[in-house]
Amino acid sequence: MISKNIQDLMKQMTIEEKIGQLLQLSADFFQGDNVAITGPLKEAHLDEAALYSAGSVLGISGAKTVRQVQNNYLKHSRLGIPLLFMADVVHGYKTIFPIPLALGASFDPQVMKTASTIAAKESAAGGIHITFAPMVDLVRDPRWGRVMESTGEDPYLNSVMAKAAVNGFQGTLPLDQEHIAACVKHFAAYGAPEAGREYNTVDISEWRFREQYLPAYAAAIEAQALLVMTSFNTLFGVPATVNQHLMRDILRNELQFHGVLISDWDAIGEIIHHGVAGDLQHAADLALKAGVDIDMMSFAYAKYLTKAAVLDTQIEQLINESAQRILILKEQLGLFNDPYRGLSDKRETEVTLTSKNLAAAQAAAEQSMVLLKNNHHTLPLNSATAISLVGPAADTGDILGSWSWQGDPEKTETIAAALAKQFSNLTVTPGTQYHHLQLSKLDDAVNASRQQEAIIAVLGLPASESGEATSVTDIKLPTEQLMLLRRLAKLNKPLITIVITGRPLDLTEVDALSDAVLLAWFPGSRGGAAIANVLSGKVDPSGRLPMTFPRNVGQVPIYYNAYNTGRPIAGTPADDENKYLSKYIDSANSPLYPFGFGLSYGDFTISDWTLSPQSVSPDQPLMVQATIHNAGNHAGTTVVQLYTHQTIGETVQPVKQLQAFKKISLAADQTQTITLTVPYDQLSTIHADLHRATDQGNYTAMLGFDSAHTASQPFTVVTHQ
Amino acid sequence: MISKNIQDLMKQMTIEEKIGQLLQLSADFFQGDNVAITGPLKEAHLDEAALYSAGSVLGISGAKTVRQVQNNYLKHSRLGIPLLFMADVVHGYKTIFPIPLALGASFDPQVMKTASTIAAKESAAGGIHITFAPMVDLVRDPRWGRVMESTGEDPYLNSVMAKAAVNGFQGTLPLDQEHIAACVKHFAAYGAPEAGREYNTVDISEWRFREQYLPAYAAAIEAQALLVMTSFNTLFGVPATVNQHLMRDILRNELQFHGVLISDWDAIGEIIHHGVAGDLQHAADLALKAGVDIDMMSFAYAKYLTKAAVLDTQIEQLINESAQRILILKEQLGLFNDPYRGLSDKRETEVTLTSKNLAAAQAAAEQSMVLLKNNHHTLPLNSATAISLVGPAADTGDILGSWSWQGDPEKTETIAAALAKQFSNLTVTPGTQYHHLQLSKLDDAVNASRQQEAIIAVLGLPASESGEATSVTDIKLPTEQLMLLRRLAKLNKPLITIVITGRPLDLTEVDALSDAVLLAWFPGSRGGAAIANVLSGKVDPSGRLPMTFPRNVGQVPIYYNAYNTGRPIAGTPADDENKYLSKYIDSANSPLYPFGFGLSYGDFTISDWTLSPQSVSPDQPLMVQATIHNAGNHAGTTVVQLYTHQTIGETVQPVKQLQAFKKISLAADQTQTITLTVPYDQLSTIHADLHRATDQGNYTAMLGFDSAHTASQPFTVVTHQ
Repeated sequence: MISKNIQDLMKQMTIEEKIGQLLQLSADFFQGDNVAITGPLKEAHLDEAALYSAGSVLGISGAKTVRQVQNNYLKHSRLGIPLLFMADVVHGYKTIFPIPLALGASFDPQVMKTASTIAAKESAAGGIHITFAPMVDLVRDPRWGRVMESTGEDPYLNSVMAKAAVNGFQGTLPLDQEHIAACVKHFAAYGAPEAGREYNTVDISEWRFREQYLPAYAAAIEAQALLVMTSFNTLFGVPATVNQHLMRDILRNELQFHGVLISDWDAIGEIIHHGVAGDLQHAADLALKAGVDIDMMSFAYAKYLTKAAVLDTQIEQLINESAQRILILKEQLGLFNDPYRGLSDKRETEVTLTSKNLAAAQAAAEQSMVLLKNNHHTLPLNSATAISLVGPAADTGDILGSWSWQGDPEKTETIAAALAKQFSNLTVTPGTQYHHLQLSKLDDAVNASRQQEAIIAVLGLPASESGEATSVTDIKLPTEQLMLLRRLAKLNKPLITIVITGRPLDLTEVDALSDAVLLAWFPGSRGGAAIANVLSGKVDPSGRLPMTFPRNVGQVPIYYNAYNTGRPIAGTPADDENKYLSKYIDSANSPLYPFGFGLSYGDFTISDWTLSPQSVSPDQPLMVQATIHNAGNHAGTTVVQLYTHQTIGETVQPVKQLQAFKKISLAADQTQTITLTVPYDQLSTIHADLHRATDQGNYTAMLGFDSAHTASQPFTVVTHQ
Repeated sequence: MISKNIQDLMKQMTIEEKIGQLLQLSADFFQGDNVAITGPLKEAHLDEAALYSAGSVLGISGAKTVRQVQNNYLKHSRLGIPLLFMADVVHGYKTIFPIPLALGASFDPQVMKTASTIAAKESAAGGIHITFAPMVDLVRDPRWGRVMESTGEDPYLNSVMAKAAVNGFQGTLPLDQEHIAACVKHFAAYGAPEAGREYNTVDISEWRFREQYLPAYAAAIEAQALLVMTSFNTLFGVPATVNQHLMRDILRNELQFHGVLISDWDAIGEIIHHGVAGDLQHAADLALKAGVDIDMMSFAYAKYLTKAAVLDTQIEQLINESAQRILILKEQLGLFNDPYRGLSDKRETEVTLTSKNLAAAQAAAEQSMVLLKNNHHTLPLNSATAISLVGPAADTGDILGSWSWQGDPEKTETIAAALAKQFSNLTVTPGTQYHHLQLSKLDDAVNASRQQEAIIAVLGLPASESGEATSVTDIKLPTEQLMLLRRLAKLNKPLITIVITGRPLDLTEVDALSDAVLLAWFPGSRGGAAIANVLSGKVDPSGRLPMTFPRNVGQVPIYYNAYNTGRPIAGTPADDENKYLSKYIDSANSPLYPFGFGLSYGDFTISDWTLSPQSVSPDQPLMVQATIHNAGNHAGTTVVQLYTHQTIGETVQPVKQLQAFKKISLAADQTQTITLTVPYDQLSTIHADLHRATDQGNYTAMLGFDSAHTASQPFTVVTHQ
């Protein structure tokens, strides 16, 4: 149902004004009070009229600036249609939360929702209307740097996190002024670039696409995300941005997405590089026909649609549809009532970087850190321990991670500074830079460590080496850092390695050399304090891996929810005697650390679990009741994970598939009974003819604390009562 | 049209006898004169009746043995239907040719045809009727050991080689007694296992499957290959062996394959492991419905089809169809006229391992070796040069490669022995074993090398580490061999590395350390002599790479005919300034050695080339006339390669696609004009709706001596006259 306001506006708008709504420009086109035909306009061959009919801008923020730009824009806008302000608010605005992959590791949708709620509140106060988040692309290749912006390799975890993020950014619709609209990206399958190389071809079967990649997008759309962004890659041979099957058949018709579809940066223009459009006019035609509403920075729509509309009434109709969708979005944001959405310097100052927000960021970091190894209770450390802190990431604010535009590494407390507050006997000697080593500095670190009781090495990479356009062929830590670690290991002191990374790494040697390994990801504004709390045992590191960590890059792609082959290994010694199994001759098939893995300071066991009913039906979800016991001496937090496997299917089935999880904290020797529920529909799979349905038959439920170590019980599904 | 003989037979056969034709047993079920219910029968729960109704056997050979087994079988066969003898005759029978990947490297279909013709003649004399070859699976992942059995990464080269192999094995139909039937494998896409892990899931879009993987199978079927083998992997979510879309829609209906479809070893039984059949009866039902005629070693058909046929007339009909196809095949082999196909000890002795056959194997090896580096004309070597020959593969007969069942490494001349015939001043000191090194032996090799004028290091791996079930995560040479090479490089003498391998390796360090690098593959029975001839300059190494050699395993998959992305690198210094391109931050995108690459002792240039017509049409193929000049001081052989690119397509197009090639030999300073032709239909591509058609529009023709260095000229295609 279209409001009268929008119906009226549509009637008044010229075709040029409608096409204007479809145009998104970058920040450099606008200059507060003094907008003029500047360099960018000239370069883009646009005129001032195009500027003042542009529907949206990306990358402008700050209450004062946004007010100025909006005010000036409205002065020039014939019909007074406000400008939309969009930006990449990914894991926080001013208060930076851990990177999304870490938020996935929290295995707690509330953590994601809180991060998104606070990001929305801060950025809304900074004048942002729409964020280009969440990215819900399923990822399996650590070579791809942008895995840091995803929540990992699992369709279910990604779906849960996608919903939480959308709910956090948007709140309950209609949007209020403390929330912003979410733009789900990247539709579709951007997370599967061949050879892990950024922007590379994606090729998967439609069966697999629907089975594993589509669910998280669908979940975000079901959670009423107001926008979707197209992806750069091809899918089924056609670039996503002009892929009619993807956008019309699947996104619009099947998923019933009625919101605004926006291209990624210049993605319409890049169809020419893909070799699917001969020129920008052709690209505009293809994108509009695929249903892309907003053209981000290719100018194809602005330059060519007016002419095309004259020649082709279908084009005119599509322009009307897109313009109307954008106007509806502006209405949903309340911009026709208040084009400034209550912006003020005061509010901006009051709501950003508050101690409450920072505390939430710290809690999120604590919840997302993954303890990968902890031999002989190396951790936690007594606060009086004499500690040598080394490594290139030990004393830097560069722990925010990529996509933290408004975060300030210079003002971020370093790990060294944070540790010093809890550990009184701390010496800091970096030993090496990320990629550059002076032997004398290395000696300094080793000598300093010799004097102390324990060594903490903070290794990893700067934020600039993770995120978009940071693909690598080598996923080991730099040799310089491994050299440092090898030297330290020879000192025979407790050696704790903290890893700062935005992607799974080959940590095989790090694991072998260290007594304890803590994966801190890029932990955000309060990452240092979170690490200090974890090391001292004030909090339990309760993150679990949302991506499999391979033994080496030669195992990639490796992920837990793989399909059985015809010649699977059984995991028994007999595997060694049979050459003709699906395995490597120089490496185990298993990863270094499996999906869902992470240690606790507690010691958890599942003492009992039952399924009810034994026979699941449309009216009877699968319910698992489990009694969890912390047998350790420390309080701890664990993530109980429920997987299922369908015994026989028309198509192959994942060996296990996450269906539910629950994070619980128990005191030492405490016991708790929990219930996990899996709705009948969630057991559905994609069949050979691409329809989704739940099959009657035998299934297995598997319960455990990670994907590789589970106990099993059978159950059945009946499709009819 | 079915012969009267077969029609009559079909009428006389019981359902059990028909099902018997569908059963293939391994050699151990048969024992010459004394067949009895032996261990294998008991283990398989089969009785003697099943044995004597079995339609075929695999792995029995030798004129005498085959005569005995056939004779005994016919004594027990009620209707006197002869047994079929099948085996893996892949790159030679007794006379071993280079591995198929090397034959692909010859870029000369006549080499493949000769190898297959001789393999057929020898194995036919040894009683073989059918070979499980050629394998035409397109391969892009060097981690997969079985790349050695393919001809590489290119649809066109694979198609040309597939045809040549089928023509070589089968001769001109009807089959005579010097030829055998070819079984094309593995249908389909077995060459794309995920993560390069043997038997692993294959998942590609149907668009890509049809575009790149299907053509070589189609070419072999068009060349009238009489059998097709199913593959172990899944495709589009369903194991190939029971994939009705693949086998019924594509293989039988589209490709019009009317021959015998055989499962791979136990592939029907393995459907249970895939989780697509609940038991063997279910697997039998699915496989028969998909159209699999012969069940190799799962016994599913033998055990369950009789019962199923009673209950279901469709099953009975399918059994009839399959049995009839197998009888037709036996008729095509002439077995109803002479079940022994003229077998005799005398003929077997006369035709195998003849000097003519061995000469052909040597010529094939010479034609398939790829000279990867040759700085400052290090090669060829003067025969008086004092040479230190080192490396684990220098003095071993283990140079035949996998799938050389009847080849004998013990009787194979080693490289050392062959070199000694041409180089009078040769010392041999291995220095290291493949994977095990004694430092004193290493010192011996280094010290020996210090005394000589040049060093030849023969590095690589044994045959047991290539071929089926030899997947690896690390594609470097073993550290021990690299240690040897590093020590040798420090001697500052001409260092020539010969690589014995069945797969592309990461040769980055080998290339850096060596003055010359010769890729010898597994060169076969006369590999030593071929290497000697190449090193001495008697012949030019004229192989060209049929697979891309990556810089490191982190680039995998990497192949030349990739699709353009939306953000391609241009190969100019400006690439470095733009972060947001499809590239790695720690490695070049380019491989170490590109597809089609290989050096010559000659020095070839394309002095002139023209296209005619400028406008290609259904009646007017693209014709390229090129003048090739050898500007070097040596005679040489080169491969002129013609690629095309379609500028704009409905789907993305490969950056270049091989369309024609020609191998030519020129004396020093000689010039020759050649013509390359590309039929209109060969310019066709798969469209978004999966139909294949040639598009009107602009194209580019690219001519060169490898895929990375080409000159371009435009042409157009018109679809209507």
